[in-house]
Amino acid sequence: MTHTQDTICAISTAPGIGGIAVIRVSGPTAIQIVKKVWKGQPIVDMPTHTVHLGSIVETDGSAIDQAVLTIFRAPGSYTGEDTVELSIHGSRFVQRRAVELLIEAGARLAEAGEFTRRAFVAGHLDLAQAEAVADVIASNSKAAHRIAMNQMRGGFSQRLAALRDKLIELASLLELELDFSEEEVEFASRHQLLAIAERVRDEVGRLHRSFESGQAIKEGIPVAIVGPTNAGKSSLLNALLGDDRAIVSNIPGTTRDTIEETLEIEEYLFRFIDTAGLRHTSDEIERIGIDRSRQAIKKARIVIAVTDVKEPIAQSLCDEIASVPYRIWVFNKVDLIGDKKSNFVPDCPTIELSAKTGKGIERLREALLDAARQENGNADEGVMVSNLRHALALENAYNSIQRVIDGLQSALSGDLVAQDLRDTIHHLGAITGTITTPDILQTIFSRFCIGK
Amino acid sequence: MTHTQDTICAISTAPGIGGIAVIRVSGPTAIQIVKKVWKGQPIVDMPTHTVHLGSIVETDGSAIDQAVLTIFRAPGSYTGEDTVELSIHGSRFVQRRAVELLIEAGARLAEAGEFTRRAFVAGHLDLAQAEAVADVIASNSKAAHRIAMNQMRGGFSQRLAALRDKLIELASLLELELDFSEEEVEFASRHQLLAIAERVRDEVGRLHRSFESGQAIKEGIPVAIVGPTNAGKSSLLNALLGDDRAIVSNIPGTTRDTIEETLEIEEYLFRFIDTAGLRHTSDEIERIGIDRSRQAIKKARIVIAVTDVKEPIAQSLCDEIASVPYRIWVFNKVDLIGDKKSNFVPDCPTIELSAKTGKGIERLREALLDAARQENGNADEGVMVSNLRHALALENAYNSIQRVIDGLQSALSGDLVAQDLRDTIHHLGAITGTITTPDILQTIFSRFCIGK
Repeated sequence: MTHTQDTICAISTAPGIGGIAVIRVSGPTAIQIVKKVWKGQPIVDMPTHTVHLGSIVETDGSAIDQAVLTIFRAPGSYTGEDTVELSIHGSRFVQRRAVELLIEAGARLAEAGEFTRRAFVAGHLDLAQAEAVADVIASNSKAAHRIAMNQMRGGFSQRLAALRDKLIELASLLELELDFSEEEVEFASRHQLLAIAERVRDEVGRLHRSFESGQAIKEGIPVAIVGPTNAGKSSLLNALLGDDRAIVSNIPGTTRDTIEETLEIEEYLFRFIDTAGLRHTSDEIERIGIDRSRQAIKKARIVIAVTDVKEPIAQSLCDEIASVPYRIWVFNKVDLIGDKKSNFVPDCPTIELSAKTGKGIERLREALLDAARQENGNADEGVMVSNLRHALALENAYNSIQRVIDGLQSALSGDLVAQDLRDTIHHLGAITGTITTPDILQTIFSRFCIGK
Repeated sequence: MTHTQDTICAISTAPGIGGIAVIRVSGPTAIQIVKKVWKGQPIVDMPTHTVHLGSIVETDGSAIDQAVLTIFRAPGSYTGEDTVELSIHGSRFVQRRAVELLIEAGARLAEAGEFTRRAFVAGHLDLAQAEAVADVIASNSKAAHRIAMNQMRGGFSQRLAALRDKLIELASLLELELDFSEEEVEFASRHQLLAIAERVRDEVGRLHRSFESGQAIKEGIPVAIVGPTNAGKSSLLNALLGDDRAIVSNIPGTTRDTIEETLEIEEYLFRFIDTAGLRHTSDEIERIGIDRSRQAIKKARIVIAVTDVKEPIAQSLCDEIASVPYRIWVFNKVDLIGDKKSNFVPDCPTIELSAKTGKGIERLREALLDAARQENGNADEGVMVSNLRHALALENAYNSIQRVIDGLQSALSGDLVAQDLRDTIHHLGAITGTITTPDILQTIFSRFCIGK
C-alpha cells in the first residue's frame, strides 16, 4: 500500500466524444511509461506542474494525436505519486488507442476510484474526504454540492477529530482513575467524566439525526403527493413541473422500480412521487397501489395532500400523513368555486390552488422551498451527514458512548467502561479511515467512476 | 478578427458526469476574468505553461470546487490568445456553476468551434487543418483517423502549397509573355506552359478522385447487400455482425431515414445496407423497396451479391451491380448441398458460404478488408480528400485549369488564359483559407462541437 504499487491509467473525463479528453497516468513508473508513447520535449527534464505540447505516438513513431502533457511529480500530485495527464482530442478512436498504447507500455487500467484511493493511502485525504469526492461529482443541486464540498474540504473530519480528542481525554482520565484506584485518589470525579461523555453523546446524536435530511438533500428531497382519487394529483404535478420545464429531468429508477419526476427549485432538488389515490377498496390490485402509496408516504420528507376544495375530507387522510416531517395541504380546483373556501382546517400550511389555471402554484413552490430550507437547517454547525456508512458508524458510536454513560452512572468498574470508550473511538475512527481494512476500501471506492 | 475580440469560455470535455471536466477560457481578458473566480496563487504572477492548485469561488468567497488551473500566455496557446484551462470535478452542478461564474465575471459562452476558429485567425492552423480538427474528434476508425491526422498535421496543405507554387510560376511566365509580346520574344514556349498546366490538372484530378474513397473511409464504407428475396441476405448480415458483436453499433440515420448496421474490421468501419430483394414485380409497394435497393447500390462502394447456391441466377443481378467499384459474390446455403458448386461464374470474387453454420464468413471478412485496403490505396501520395467542401473546390480548380489548357492549346491570348489561371489559384486557396469570408468560416466552424 505504498509507492511500490503498479502504475495505473484511465480516461478521467466523461465518456463519449468531446473537444478534449484527459487521460491520467499515476504510479512509480508513470514517467517511464508515458515516455514510450511521447514525442516532444523529454519528460525526464520537465519540472513538476508544467505543461508541454507534443504527440502521442505508436511504437513505429507515427503520431496518433497531438497532445498537451502535464506533469506532477511525487509527492505534489493528487495521488501523491508521479502523475502525468495527457490532454488529447476527444475522439472515440484516439481515447481508446491512447489508453491501449499506455497499457502496452506497461500501465494497468485503473479500477473505479483508484486514483482517489491512492490519494487516501498517501494521506492526502482521509476516508470521509475521499468519499466526498464521489459525492461532489454526483451532486445534482447546489445544496447537495455544498454538503459534499464541506465534507471534502474536511468540515466533517474536523468535527470528528474534536470528538475524538474529547474521548481520548475521557480515556486518559479513566486510566488515571484505574492506575490510582487502589490509592483511592479520585483525579476526576465521575460527574466530570459523565458530563464529557454526555456532551459527546449529544453531539454524535445530532450528527446522526442530520442524516435523514442530509440524504434527502443529497439525493433529492422525496415529496409524496397523496389524496383521494380524482383530486387532481397528477395535474398538480404537471403544473408544478411545467413552471420549470427546462430543468425537469427523469431519474431512471436504479434501486426504485418507478420513474420519478424531479424538479430543481433554487438550490434544492425535489423528487416527486405521484401516488395512487388513497381510499378504502376491496379491489386487490388497487389495494397494492394504496400500499405503495403508504410506502411512499413513509419514505417522504415532504407530503403534499391534495383534496378537491368542493369535496368533504376524510380525517383518515390527516392520520395517514401525520408522520411526515413537512406537510402541505392543497385545496385544488378553486377555479370551479370562486371565492368559497373549504371548512376543513388541517394542522399544516394550506394552499388554495388551481392546477388548471396555475393559481397558487407559486405559493406551493414557496412552501416546498420553506420545507427544504428547514431540512437544510438540520445541519449541525454546518455539518450534515449524507453517507449511509457514516450514519451507521455514528449510530454505533452513539450506542457505545451511551453504554459508557450507563456504566459511569451505575458505577461500573473503570476497565469495563474503558472498553465501551475504545469502541466509541473505533466507530468514529472508521469514518475517517484511521482504522480500516482492504475490504472496506474496496467497497467504498468501487462506487466511484473510473478515472477518479 | 485580431486580439481585440472578447473572451470566450466553454466546457471542452464530453458532456455528462466524469471524474474531471475541463473549462477553457480564451481571450484578451481571460486572466482578469478567471482571477475573479479564483482563490489560490495569484494568476498574474504565473509563468506560461504552468499548473496550480486552488479553488473556484463564488463572489462571496465560498468555494464551489477545488480546481487545477493551467495558464497559457499569448501567443503560445492553441488560440494564440491568453488561455486559462480549469480542471474541475465533473459534476453537473460544478460544471454549470463554474461556467455561470465565468460569464458573470465577463466571459461569453463560446460558439461551436470558436477556439479553433481563433487558432485559424491567429495563423496557427490553415483552414484545411482546422477542419481536420473536427474530423479527428469525429473519427470512428483507425483509417478515418489517419486521414484526419494527416490533414491536421498539414499533409494536404503542403500538397496544395506545392500546386500553388507551380501555378504562380505558370502565371509569372504567362505575364512575361504578355509584357514582351510586342517584341516577339518567347520566354517560355507554350508547350512548356502546357506541360506544367497538365501536371497540375492531373494532380488536382487525382486528389479529387480520392474523395469518394476518402469520404467512404471517413464515414464508414457503404456496403450494399443485394440479391433475390429469400437468398439469406439478412441472416448473412447477422452472421457477419455476430462475429464481432462487441464492436457493432448502430448509427442513427441523421441524413438517412434508416438505421444501418456498422461493423469495424481491423482499421476500417463498414456501413451495411440490407436491401429489399431485387426482382420484377407488379406490386407497387414492393417496387418502392426495389427502387430503394437500387439507390443503395448506387451509393455503395462495395456490394455483396447474395444468391442461393441451389437456385438459378438471373443475369440481371450482375447488370444491377456492375457499377459498384468492389463486388463480392456470395453463394449462400452451402450447408444444404454438400460439395456441389454453382455453375454460375460472375466477374468478381466468389465465396461459398453458409450464414447458418458460419462457413465462409471469415473469407467474406477478408474480402471486405481487401476491398477496404484497395479503397485506402486510392490516396494520392498519402493524401486523401475526405471533405465535401474541398472536393467541390478541387472540382472547380480542375475545371479552370482545364480551361487554361484549352486556352493554351487553342492559342488564346495570354490575358484570357491568365484569368482562368487566377481562378484556379483562387479555388485551391479557398481550401486552406488564404481567401475566405466570415460566412464561409461561420458555416465551417458551426459544425464543430462547443468547447473546441
